[in-house]
Amino acid sequence: MTFAATILTLYPEMFPGPLGISLAGRALEENRWSLATVQIRDFAADKHRTVDDTPAGGGAGMVLKADVLASAIDHARAAQPDAPVLAMTPRGKPISQARIRELAAGPGVTILCGRFEGFDERIFEGRDVEEVSVGDLVLSGGEPAALMLLDACIRLLPGVMGAASSGTEESFEQGLLEYPHYTRPQEWEGRTIPEVLRSGDHAKIAAWRKAMSEDHTRLRRPDLWERHCGVRDRSASGARRENEDQGQ
Amino acid sequence: MTFAATILTLYPEMFPGPLGISLAGRALEENRWSLATVQIRDFAADKHRTVDDTPAGGGAGMVLKADVLASAIDHARAAQPDAPVLAMTPRGKPISQARIRELAAGPGVTILCGRFEGFDERIFEGRDVEEVSVGDLVLSGGEPAALMLLDACIRLLPGVMGAASSGTEESFEQGLLEYPHYTRPQEWEGRTIPEVLRSGDHAKIAAWRKAMSEDHTRLRRPDLWERHCGVRDRSASGARRENEDQGQ
Repeated sequence: MTFAATILTLYPEMFPGPLGISLAGRALEENRWSLATVQIRDFAADKHRTVDDTPAGGGAGMVLKADVLASAIDHARAAQPDAPVLAMTPRGKPISQARIRELAAGPGVTILCGRFEGFDERIFEGRDVEEVSVGDLVLSGGEPAALMLLDACIRLLPGVMGAASSGTEESFEQGLLEYPHYTRPQEWEGRTIPEVLRSGDHAKIAAWRKAMSEDHTRLRRPDLWERHCGVRDRSASGARRENEDQGQ
Repeated sequence: MTFAATILTLYPEMFPGPLGISLAGRALEENRWSLATVQIRDFAADKHRTVDDTPAGGGAGMVLKADVLASAIDHARAAQPDAPVLAMTPRGKPISQARIRELAAGPGVTILCGRFEGFDERIFEGRDVEEVSVGDLVLSGGEPAALMLLDACIRLLPGVMGAASSGTEESFEQGLLEYPHYTRPQEWEGRTIPEVLRSGDHAKIAAWRKAMSEDHTRLRRPDLWERHCGVRDRSASGARRENEDQGQ
């Protein structure tokens, strides 16, 4: 089954862009994923092809019209009824590797890219659209965020990376940052590879990596660390399964 | 002064990509920013142009060599000595709009994009490199993240957007999500624009937007909300200025 990516945008020429090159580009050639772009402007109802209007209540910028967006979404959904529709917006839920995995395991994804000041809020009430954020920063539009989200999905598709690299993101899904990597030369500018990594003792290496992973997460990302500890505690006490039984 | 973007990558053909179009594309033509790519492979020391090697201690994937990365960084830094060097990595500090603003106000930015399993950790000890994350997800390489980070910087450069839109990100910098937007039609699929926005009472509209902004942040992003309240409390008690005096 081919993973179907559909992009709703005012700038279809931005795609596939970087995703036409290297890993994602090869996967596209091999039909491991497909790309369709939908020009939002094609769904404007007037002869001027208007997609935006001034914000109600005043203020700077322009707002994308709910009626035009809805027509574009309905068109995309008719073609890919099973693909979730995501809108890239800093007001959305922060994306996670767990959600990326879910998306990559599904039939595809339809991504709505905003420009200007944003979307008319009623589109989120009137259509089933998942608001997704890629960080606390403001972009000129959703397109760079969509490219990034797709890249993260594509590398997980069957046959794209091979089994060799599957370990990396498992580490992330436990909610920890990855341990540090080293490779030759053994000594570089007076800095050597940690002794333990040259020991050949696989159990010791695994323990060191786990400890480094935990240390880095605790020091750099107290937010992830807290969540990790919470999950671990619940898991240890059996409460985690209980929560799952309750559908949480 | 032109904002100088330098990208260290194994795939220079990914740039400018989406940044050659629309807002960023026009700004590039108008010399409001400049783009230089550096092919990391050009700094390999052997005749096979090797940039990576197997991880010390075993494991999947390949690790980018510290000696090759250092040569590429030194080359870029010689050309742009005042630009900070950022490496895109999920182990880095989450990017923020505040950091984007700082970068956009500076001479430019040099971005190191990884591929494969990651960077040899010693590059972060041996060179002054800021590790930056764009979210808790794993990409095939740093390039899509670099494109996104640059897009966020470019829209803030003088003359790129005009004064009209400067309000948007100020809202974000107070650590709150933006209020919802509405535009015509007044009624869409039975949903109307909130009454207050049609009142013409600017004080009431501003108060409503502030309340919506706070509500959304509290409900959707408790992490941002906690930080916002912390800053507000300190600010109210005067402790914030005290912290600044101590250089914090």
